[in-house]
Amino acid sequence: MSKNTPPSGQSQFANKAQAWSARFSEPVSDLVKRYTASVDFDRRLAAVDIQGSLAHADMLAAIGIISQQDNADIQRGMAQILQEIQQNAFEWSLDLEDVHLNIEKRLVELIGDAGKRLHTGRSRNDQVATDIRLWLRAEIDTSIDLLRQLRRNLAELALQHAGTILPGFTHLQVAQPVTFGHHLLAYAEMFDRDAQRLADCRKRVNRLPLGAAALAGTSYPIDRERVAQALGFDGVCRNSLDAVSDRDFAIEFCAAAALIMTHISRFSEELVLWMSPRVGFIDLADRFCTGSSIMPQKKNPDVPELARGKTGRVNGHLVALLTLMKGQPLAYNKDNQEDKEGLFDSADTIRDTLTIFVDMVGGIRVKPDAMRAAALQGFATATDLADYLVKKGVPFRDAHETVAHAVRSCEEQGCDLADLPLEQLQAFHASIEPDVFDVLTLEGSVAARNHIGGTAPERVKIEAQRVLDETR
Amino acid sequence: MSKNTPPSGQSQFANKAQAWSARFSEPVSDLVKRYTASVDFDRRLAAVDIQGSLAHADMLAAIGIISQQDNADIQRGMAQILQEIQQNAFEWSLDLEDVHLNIEKRLVELIGDAGKRLHTGRSRNDQVATDIRLWLRAEIDTSIDLLRQLRRNLAELALQHAGTILPGFTHLQVAQPVTFGHHLLAYAEMFDRDAQRLADCRKRVNRLPLGAAALAGTSYPIDRERVAQALGFDGVCRNSLDAVSDRDFAIEFCAAAALIMTHISRFSEELVLWMSPRVGFIDLADRFCTGSSIMPQKKNPDVPELARGKTGRVNGHLVALLTLMKGQPLAYNKDNQEDKEGLFDSADTIRDTLTIFVDMVGGIRVKPDAMRAAALQGFATATDLADYLVKKGVPFRDAHETVAHAVRSCEEQGCDLADLPLEQLQAFHASIEPDVFDVLTLEGSVAARNHIGGTAPERVKIEAQRVLDETR
Amino acid sequence: MSKNTPPSGQSQFANKAQAWSARFSEPVSDLVKRYTASVDFDRRLAAVDIQGSLAHADMLAAIGIISQQDNADIQRGMAQILQEIQQNAFEWSLDLEDVHLNIEKRLVELIGDAGKRLHTGRSRNDQVATDIRLWLRAEIDTSIDLLRQLRRNLAELALQHAGTILPGFTHLQVAQPVTFGHHLLAYAEMFDRDAQRLADCRKRVNRLPLGAAALAGTSYPIDRERVAQALGFDGVCRNSLDAVSDRDFAIEFCAAAALIMTHISRFSEELVLWMSPRVGFIDLADRFCTGSSIMPQKKNPDVPELARGKTGRVNGHLVALLTLMKGQPLAYNKDNQEDKEGLFDSADTIRDTLTIFVDMVGGIRVKPDAMRAAALQGFATATDLADYLVKKGVPFRDAHETVAHAVRSCEEQGCDLADLPLEQLQAFHASIEPDVFDVLTLEGSVAARNHIGGTAPERVKIEAQRVLDETR
Amino acid sequence: MSKNTPPSGQSQFANKAQAWSARFSEPVSDLVKRYTASVDFDRRLAAVDIQGSLAHADMLAAIGIISQQDNADIQRGMAQILQEIQQNAFEWSLDLEDVHLNIEKRLVELIGDAGKRLHTGRSRNDQVATDIRLWLRAEIDTSIDLLRQLRRNLAELALQHAGTILPGFTHLQVAQPVTFGHHLLAYAEMFDRDAQRLADCRKRVNRLPLGAAALAGTSYPIDRERVAQALGFDGVCRNSLDAVSDRDFAIEFCAAAALIMTHISRFSEELVLWMSPRVGFIDLADRFCTGSSIMPQKKNPDVPELARGKTGRVNGHLVALLTLMKGQPLAYNKDNQEDKEGLFDSADTIRDTLTIFVDMVGGIRVKPDAMRAAALQGFATATDLADYLVKKGVPFRDAHETVAHAVRSCEEQGCDLADLPLEQLQAFHASIEPDVFDVLTLEGSVAARNHIGGTAPERVKIEAQRVLDETR
Repeated sequence: MSKNTPPSGQSQFANKAQAWSARFSEPVSDLVKRYTASVDFDRRLAAVDIQGSLAHADMLAAIGIISQQDNADIQRGMAQILQEIQQNAFEWSLDLEDVHLNIEKRLVELIGDAGKRLHTGRSRNDQVATDIRLWLRAEIDTSIDLLRQLRRNLAELALQHAGTILPGFTHLQVAQPVTFGHHLLAYAEMFDRDAQRLADCRKRVNRLPLGAAALAGTSYPIDRERVAQALGFDGVCRNSLDAVSDRDFAIEFCAAAALIMTHISRFSEELVLWMSPRVGFIDLADRFCTGSSIMPQKKNPDVPELARGKTGRVNGHLVALLTLMKGQPLAYNKDNQEDKEGLFDSADTIRDTLTIFVDMVGGIRVKPDAMRAAALQGFATATDLADYLVKKGVPFRDAHETVAHAVRSCEEQGCDLADLPLEQLQAFHASIEPDVFDVLTLEGSVAARNHIGGTAPERVKIEAQRVLDETR
Repeated sequence: MSKNTPPSGQSQFANKAQAWSARFSEPVSDLVKRYTASVDFDRRLAAVDIQGSLAHADMLAAIGIISQQDNADIQRGMAQILQEIQQNAFEWSLDLEDVHLNIEKRLVELIGDAGKRLHTGRSRNDQVATDIRLWLRAEIDTSIDLLRQLRRNLAELALQHAGTILPGFTHLQVAQPVTFGHHLLAYAEMFDRDAQRLADCRKRVNRLPLGAAALAGTSYPIDRERVAQALGFDGVCRNSLDAVSDRDFAIEFCAAAALIMTHISRFSEELVLWMSPRVGFIDLADRFCTGSSIMPQKKNPDVPELARGKTGRVNGHLVALLTLMKGQPLAYNKDNQEDKEGLFDSADTIRDTLTIFVDMVGGIRVKPDAMRAAALQGFATATDLADYLVKKGVPFRDAHETVAHAVRSCEEQGCDLADLPLEQLQAFHASIEPDVFDVLTLEGSVAARNHIGGTAPERVKIEAQRVLDETR
Repeated sequence: MSKNTPPSGQSQFANKAQAWSARFSEPVSDLVKRYTASVDFDRRLAAVDIQGSLAHADMLAAIGIISQQDNADIQRGMAQILQEIQQNAFEWSLDLEDVHLNIEKRLVELIGDAGKRLHTGRSRNDQVATDIRLWLRAEIDTSIDLLRQLRRNLAELALQHAGTILPGFTHLQVAQPVTFGHHLLAYAEMFDRDAQRLADCRKRVNRLPLGAAALAGTSYPIDRERVAQALGFDGVCRNSLDAVSDRDFAIEFCAAAALIMTHISRFSEELVLWMSPRVGFIDLADRFCTGSSIMPQKKNPDVPELARGKTGRVNGHLVALLTLMKGQPLAYNKDNQEDKEGLFDSADTIRDTLTIFVDMVGGIRVKPDAMRAAALQGFATATDLADYLVKKGVPFRDAHETVAHAVRSCEEQGCDLADLPLEQLQAFHASIEPDVFDVLTLEGSVAARNHIGGTAPERVKIEAQRVLDETR
Repeated sequence: MSKNTPPSGQSQFANKAQAWSARFSEPVSDLVKRYTASVDFDRRLAAVDIQGSLAHADMLAAIGIISQQDNADIQRGMAQILQEIQQNAFEWSLDLEDVHLNIEKRLVELIGDAGKRLHTGRSRNDQVATDIRLWLRAEIDTSIDLLRQLRRNLAELALQHAGTILPGFTHLQVAQPVTFGHHLLAYAEMFDRDAQRLADCRKRVNRLPLGAAALAGTSYPIDRERVAQALGFDGVCRNSLDAVSDRDFAIEFCAAAALIMTHISRFSEELVLWMSPRVGFIDLADRFCTGSSIMPQKKNPDVPELARGKTGRVNGHLVALLTLMKGQPLAYNKDNQEDKEGLFDSADTIRDTLTIFVDMVGGIRVKPDAMRAAALQGFATATDLADYLVKKGVPFRDAHETVAHAVRSCEEQGCDLADLPLEQLQAFHASIEPDVFDVLTLEGSVAARNHIGGTAPERVKIEAQRVLDETR
């Protein structure tokens, strides 16, 4: 089999269309060529395309479909091609449509017939599916690690601010005091689930489609599990039609990416708000902001704003891929070429955004005084006073009425509940005792919420430490 | 604490707005009331709302926050309410806004003060989050089971048609013969991944938010893990702000549902196509179709068409929820009330659709003759002839040319490759021997693709049996 | 023709499936019936369905296809049916699938054979397309009027606050002072474009599909233009296949609705922010808010928050309809039944939301002091000082440096630029003269921006008056 | 004013961040720089950016804010820059963030101080909004013209095939015969509405934002209407805050583009189906297809498949922009930088796709025999027979029963209704006369549907001619 030598000088790639030109009366126009070609964007798959080809060649040699010499030639040729690509010395041709044909043609130029035999028992349909999975697996691993770093930095800041109090908002109205550490750890939880989702998605990405050939498998006695093992896949796709035609793993990734960006958008919204002069809870490091040449005090939180905006593009890519697959009959249709750009951009967006946020969280400067002042503004401990009274045996409804009276009195006097002298408080209800101040102060309020998930500083320290342990 | 008796006859529910009416100068208008109320759709959470309340009450009693008598009263009152709801005897009031206040008010009517004490240490914010998770967990379990049944029915039909040959299409052009069993099992794989996704989502759904209270936790010494265990949760949400404000688990579910519907839409597209008279590969059972009063031969595949259309609504709900959460600051905002309708409808859509498809797959009548005739139409074994020649030592390129000549000759003669006599085939290439017919026939072609994932009947039987074993 | 009497007692509606039951071996199951029926949601088309039928009957009578007596019977029967529906006395049947069959069956019950002849020359395909267009046209007219009212109320408030100054934000940082009237008119512009979009959409909605019949037109010599005129359509759909199958007019409406909600979401975001205690620029009337039983000062801006959340559902419906139509072959497919619920809900959402906002804008209480204090916080007139210097002939770059120095000095002294005495200002640059205070004050700054589109109070009054004139 | 000479050698662009560096302690990192820069994609706005600047400079000179010499210098400098860009000789710098700063810096290099004065009375906020509108207006005009050409080519083909009969499908089941010309004109109607939508959108795009400056207008006495006229705008944006912050015109364009692609996807679905060997209604010109090296008869309709897939990306961009704008407070936020890429890609996608379809429609080869054979397959004239009987006075219900009997008889005999001899037909109903064959044949059936919108060849010719007249 290794003696198959096509007539020298005759290349199947000189013009791809030549292959069927006997029947085709005209070439595709330049616009059609550009419209249908993918090499402008799928060339970023070059490294994984080569990686997949090498594993395929090894297997073909191992089972005797190609010779060891062919395999050695292929390995050598591909090493050179990879180098050419890395050094920007590779000539990409639009005429050759995609990354696969570009590389294969160059391989044949470099090593001759052995290069042609590489494609035995496979097709571009299973080849591209394999490439995307290899590429996406690496992106997932990168993003999982970035989420780990981001959680770590959030936990470190949370530990520092386990006792820093700011108003907890509902409806952007002051509700109850919380600690800033607690607030930050809410995001650490979100990003933890995001990482779990990516890890779950990875299981479904990490199956080998190669061997599905065009759609039905191949008549060569290929050893798919060997290839899977060589490429680090957990197993093989068990149905060839499914392997070449479905892209649900890519959509699942985009959905996970959309949730990451949704969480980023929520965090960004808060960062922008906290930076606004009327709030002023934090300052971001200068390297994430722009300023004004004549208003030196001005700092625009460009990065969180832009990150918030980028939520749109990732949501959009998710919709694009869902629309793409809707109603597509089996097996491979050209529609599927549209699976890549949105996927690539989604992965790029979360990688860049997470990388920047890892750094940005480390550069948050907290302004505890402004936080505290805001927490004192809205009678945030009114709930605590009510709970206090109920615990003293005051009927629920009476307790609420008592608190309402006390709050109204404070409003008139322009002070906080904790500022009222004991006697005045006791005038509202006789069961109030000196220990009331343990709950009326911001510190008392947060300290009392000392159960799993509560905002008590003691609890925040435990949780922050747990996150630090998990993200080591 | 159990002595808290509010003034009799004074209900906090008579008019919810009364509570703050001292300061509010006007009631909400009827339109605002309707606009902001959720009871019309969240009442379907009633059963899980009660379930959550009972576990909460048990815990409160266990740690001494309410008395055992209170707990017993609550259990009794709730049992009656549940019955009233099931018997449609419960009076839902728009004035009471949502399912929680409706039930709580009725409980107070039935059992008095104990009913009021039920809300100790919780808030509607963590209550509704708990309800949605309990409800969604059950929906997930239902859908996972339906996907199991669907895979089972696909595998049974696949086993029957492990050797039934139809054309495998790429670009809706005949590419290579495949078996119908193999084609069906492609969907069994898709639905398997869908079930896995739901199971992965379930892990993140199945955490208890209760105890987060309004946003910061509570000053009562609650035992959240006890409640989690009682309600079958895998653990508790570890951050109160996150627990009341995030809805990523619901979005993840909608994304999984969108993929289920995407797969359904692809299957439906094929069913509609296969039912079309020019194709005629299958017949659906009458109960899934409509007809025409004057064209008795006409059968419209209404169910697959409608199912394909319903992909839109689930994609839409996914976008709705992503849009909803984009840029929302912590913690709870009223926006979140919008999380339910789309989620409910997504769950309903996949449950109904899967239920019908489980039944419909069982009712597919296969027309092997039409399938076979179509497979013979496009020289589907041309690839096999090329592979045959290459295996005989013919250079790859020569092999392809030989096949192209043979196909052209068949076209002129209006026959298939397998119809050519041996001598004629040998005229195209001398290395062709009698064993060529093992690959030129449809049967030979499919039988040769006998590796994991290939379309060979033998292989299809193994895979179908595997699916049957997995879905027992 | 009027003598066609079907055998008495034999109804084509007793069981719709009976019509083709000779060939159908089984009825549809209950679940399939529920899955495929639309009467639960399309019954809201009843009034327009009847309106369309009456116009159709009139035309049939006018050209002699049915008798005048038939027509009179139909008009009488339909009048009764409409009354029954309005009085909730109409019995809707799921077995009859949709609004059309339900009404038609009742008509035959009431008037006998004439009722059967109503369907001459039409089909449910063109009938439902006509119904949706009639219904949507009315919804568009309602929403256009609501947008007019909303613009009017914005302009009235703008006129009152043509001179009320608040900080204009970019990046939520104080940029330059603007007037509140100017800020409100920005929304008046957005809602104007929204109304224009609806009006443009209406032109495409307002074409008559009736006469397309099932897909190809009818062999009866119908007079479509008469029907169009009777129903107030601008003309007829000029292609029957297009008329029954496309729904782009509905998608266009949903896109316009999504933009309305996008603008509402932006306004809502600002209302929520302005209500937040750290900002405190406005107060909303109590009827749009909820409170807290124990924190009487608390007011949650429920309506704007919920409206902001509802943006999601309308975006979702738009995606649902786009997904629905993607890749659908001509002509009518059952998928299209999914066109209604999302469309209905989009129309309901914008109608309810706009109705409430019309009222809510009237109830905005402005807090000019808080606005002014905020505008003074960020050296908002720094740009004005730079422009002043440039106009005095100071080179651009020098002017900027001078301002930066002055701002820094103010920051150190804790004052605003306008607070610096003239001598101190002149120390920064000799060309500064007493007239500098005309631009350094907030009032001077806004007054100077007196061109079309600028924030000067004088200009705001003109623009507000223009909007009032347009929305009379 | 023209004497403002900044210290030579001192450039505000050397490092943009220098401007505020006195206060900023660190530069932005490379990743942040890349993350926030837009020059990689917004440089395509260069020509319109220059166009806008020239009109602005002209106006500044006309009202005396800059000198005529300055204006002449600016015109000269910009002419050179435009040439450099067109010749790829322009050096784009990431450090300069965006197209505006890149061009402005080069202008200052070329012409000195006059270049700096160009930015008087404007800001990047209104500048970029102007650029996008100018660019989008041209794209709209291009696409409207392409839609015109596409309609023209559809009408020409329709005219040729006004009498070519194929089955009209509902539910992909044969329903009634239609003419191919009629079928094509359905798409001509859709693309007409698409063009109308673009024209309507253009009205809202074509307003000048320049003069809004950063957000509030400018203190210079600018003449915005002069600039509007010079740039061909219909008028000016009447509110500065709205002008710099809203992007609804871009979203409206994307929605119109999504509908264009939706229509393209429907047409593509049919082209792919019609090319499938089981259907075989048409052949596409070779230049839009790919083939197979060994199956010479195979032709893959790559272009329609890919176009169908590209519907996804345009839907996605629409969602991206809607998500982007949701909940954004006024005025300009950095989020808005995300408005461009999706918009650019949407415009590119429809332009390329329409260009190719204009050509492809011209290359459709119709196979009338296959169409006719398919139309004869499903008793497509059964409805005509029923109508015939009703017109003869046969009661509606009896007519239907008669037809059902006749169809069943044909099925048994394996023939079409038109194949039955008159006597046999009369056995079904005595009122059948020889003129029945006028309606039983495919030709008779289509000819009878001769009203506006009907499929009669005569009517198709009229409508095709109308479209040809409209698209001249």
